[in-house]
Amino acid sequence: MLGRLNHVAIAVPDLAAASAVYRDTLGAKLTEPQALPEHGVTVVFIDTGNTKIELLEPLGEGSPIAAFLEKNPAGGMHHLCYEVEDIIAARDRLKAAGARVLGDGTPKIGAHGKPVLFLHPKDFLGTLVELEQV
Amino acid sequence: MLGRLNHVAIAVPDLAAASAVYRDTLGAKLTEPQALPEHGVTVVFIDTGNTKIELLEPLGEGSPIAAFLEKNPAGGMHHLCYEVEDIIAARDRLKAAGARVLGDGTPKIGAHGKPVLFLHPKDFLGTLVELEQV
Repeated sequence: MLGRLNHVAIAVPDLAAASAVYRDTLGAKLTEPQALPEHGVTVVFIDTGNTKIELLEPLGEGSPIAAFLEKNPAGGMHHLCYEVEDIIAARDRLKAAGARVLGDGTPKIGAHGKPVLFLHPKDFLGTLVELEQV
Repeated sequence: MLGRLNHVAIAVPDLAAASAVYRDTLGAKLTEPQALPEHGVTVVFIDTGNTKIELLEPLGEGSPIAAFLEKNPAGGMHHLCYEVEDIIAARDRLKAAGARVLGDGTPKIGAHGKPVLFLHPKDFLGTLVELEQV
């Protein structure tokens, strides 16, 4: 079921400063910042050739990464996103195995315009897992 | 400078249970556990096709992931490993930029038999970064 690692998301308090770390210090290639008000974040993607790093900065009130940044004010790894071929089949298989799918289990449209779901960190080794249908 | 994402490491308290989550619940392919006493960990690799997830369980006294697991008893994302072509050139560039390289700056031989260095999380968005020469 598990496909490619689509991206690793890193939540950061300051997207411009975080972008400078990857661009200037690490010599990476970055996209321009993209505001996603419906997700409460502004994102920058770093292409590592085989996968992507997604830098996330809170946008607006009630950002889903605000609580994480309160606990981790310097930033930190926020979630892993794996690709699946059929997100409904994946959801049903996971629920049958007793894993918790966040929200009401209905996929939302993610940053890449594809259906996504999030899985409970307590069921996945303390890591928040996003599934994206590709 | 920054190359491919070689792996994402997840520290776990129980490697057998963690392996079952990825193998049985997520349907991933795993390697057999490999004890690395010189690194204080036992590892299992998950091949996602484009990169790898490395599950790490403490091995022996003074494991380098013991403190992390005390803070995160259910486990969690521990570090990101990026590939570089020349680890000495990368180290010198990072030090010149003011970034902190852990230890004495001399590369050690990592889990893949290649030279590795670790960078200070406070200089890299709250994420521990490993560089591996490939």
